[in-house]
Amino acid sequence: MRSVAIVSALLLAGCASTTPGVATAPTAPVGPVETPKPPARLQYLYGSPEAAVAVRATNARIADYGAWRIKQRPKDSVVLAPGATMDAPAFEPCGDKPFAAVFDADETLIWNLGPMRYFAEKGTPFDVKVWDQWEKTGAGKALAMPGSVEMVTRLRAAGIAVIANTNRSAANAKGSEDTLRAAGLGEFKHGETLFLMGDDAGGSSKDDRRATIASKYCVILMAGDQLGDFSQQFNARDLPAARRMALATSAAANALWDKGWFLFPNPVYGPWEKLGWDDVFPAASNWTPE
Amino acid sequence: MRSVAIVSALLLAGCASTTPGVATAPTAPVGPVETPKPPARLQYLYGSPEAAVAVRATNARIADYGAWRIKQRPKDSVVLAPGATMDAPAFEPCGDKPFAAVFDADETLIWNLGPMRYFAEKGTPFDVKVWDQWEKTGAGKALAMPGSVEMVTRLRAAGIAVIANTNRSAANAKGSEDTLRAAGLGEFKHGETLFLMGDDAGGSSKDDRRATIASKYCVILMAGDQLGDFSQQFNARDLPAARRMALATSAAANALWDKGWFLFPNPVYGPWEKLGWDDVFPAASNWTPE
Repeated sequence: MRSVAIVSALLLAGCASTTPGVATAPTAPVGPVETPKPPARLQYLYGSPEAAVAVRATNARIADYGAWRIKQRPKDSVVLAPGATMDAPAFEPCGDKPFAAVFDADETLIWNLGPMRYFAEKGTPFDVKVWDQWEKTGAGKALAMPGSVEMVTRLRAAGIAVIANTNRSAANAKGSEDTLRAAGLGEFKHGETLFLMGDDAGGSSKDDRRATIASKYCVILMAGDQLGDFSQQFNARDLPAARRMALATSAAANALWDKGWFLFPNPVYGPWEKLGWDDVFPAASNWTPE
Repeated sequence: MRSVAIVSALLLAGCASTTPGVATAPTAPVGPVETPKPPARLQYLYGSPEAAVAVRATNARIADYGAWRIKQRPKDSVVLAPGATMDAPAFEPCGDKPFAAVFDADETLIWNLGPMRYFAEKGTPFDVKVWDQWEKTGAGKALAMPGSVEMVTRLRAAGIAVIANTNRSAANAKGSEDTLRAAGLGEFKHGETLFLMGDDAGGSSKDDRRATIASKYCVILMAGDQLGDFSQQFNARDLPAARRMALATSAAANALWDKGWFLFPNPVYGPWEKLGWDDVFPAASNWTPE
């Protein structure tokens, strides 16, 4: 358990309210401090029509792309071959393998509203023990994201296997199968259409699991909310922020975004939480009022 | 100037750190409280490759759509006719008017890094006086968003007028023209390709300005980071959150998203900041660990 001081620091790193191009200042929260509003990034992702529109449109693009892509009988999966990087991309071959679409689960197929509200109301950081319980008991409390039920239904109707590759624990396989089913997303079966952390020696890297899937399927598309859902190269230890940005927006990566690789918005959590002031705001853009 | 108590409440509404599907807890901020990291929503939008990828892909979709759409000589603009709503959509006719694409400016064409860092470092909410100075003096300090220079260049090369309709003030027209030009986005001229708050009696509603633009142009696409960039109906006073969500994700709206209406992610500011706990987290998804 972190100290109150660190929790306070996290909160202080929080949320000045900012509203450009609007003539009036935003409404300050009313009511006691004991019942503040949810953190802004949670308000946006889980509550706003703005995020719902973005998520639903991404799901529509995925379903449209899948239906279109299989007509072409692609030569390669969109899974990078072992050792291939964005600097020298190469892909697993399709052969005559059946088609599959590979998805992360959390904040890609489902929204984890239960523990997100719990953590936010308590003002506590992420807690692995609470999360472990969530994996075991969350069925019925996680919601399918906007448009994701329609999306997986369309893919399956087109004959495309829908596979999840998530860093939920293999020890909690049944809980995650139940959670996805209860959200209306259909059947995922561990080892066949559900791949979990602990399935191999790769730890939180999904690369080995992707290779396993691509050995059996022609993976026509992948979707996730984190860059690690596409390649572990984006999570390389000590990768400088500028290099990570360059890799993710390279010509080779840009040729894949929306064309086999589909990224969902997630301003709630991610490795960008490490970025400092000068990573986020280049010195050349610094400005102060008179 | 708001009291320290209210600023504290805003900060407390902030940011519990949450990282599902990861085996280790996130790194707590180190160093003195005086130099915390930027607020998470700013880290994500302005600093992360994840957001850069999403923005760049949106810009690519806009440019692709524009080039494709004008070949069809559309019958109607994507600007709703006066009085039309998502329940009964009707659009301004194109006739043989020249083609245009209409954009919001802030967090749609440019990132306002200067005042965003200033507000965040100070821990202060949005300040209209500071923003007014920014409109006047920000040229060279606002950055074009990822892919937006390429996008406007492609649209103009296809013969499509690029028009901005923003709630920056008409009194600061020169500052905004200079800001867009300095960001590499080319020429915007007040009254011709730049429409500002104060141009008519509509205040912060962009509907009348959209009607003015659609009287002269066949508007093949609109793009923005707020629902008010498409229709003021989404900003109707006292519109319940559930109704706003239903309008934005209605069949009529879904037929437009990515097909004439393009929404950029913006978890930094928006009307969703008013949402309360039960708006964001439906009671049926409440969960607590044992």
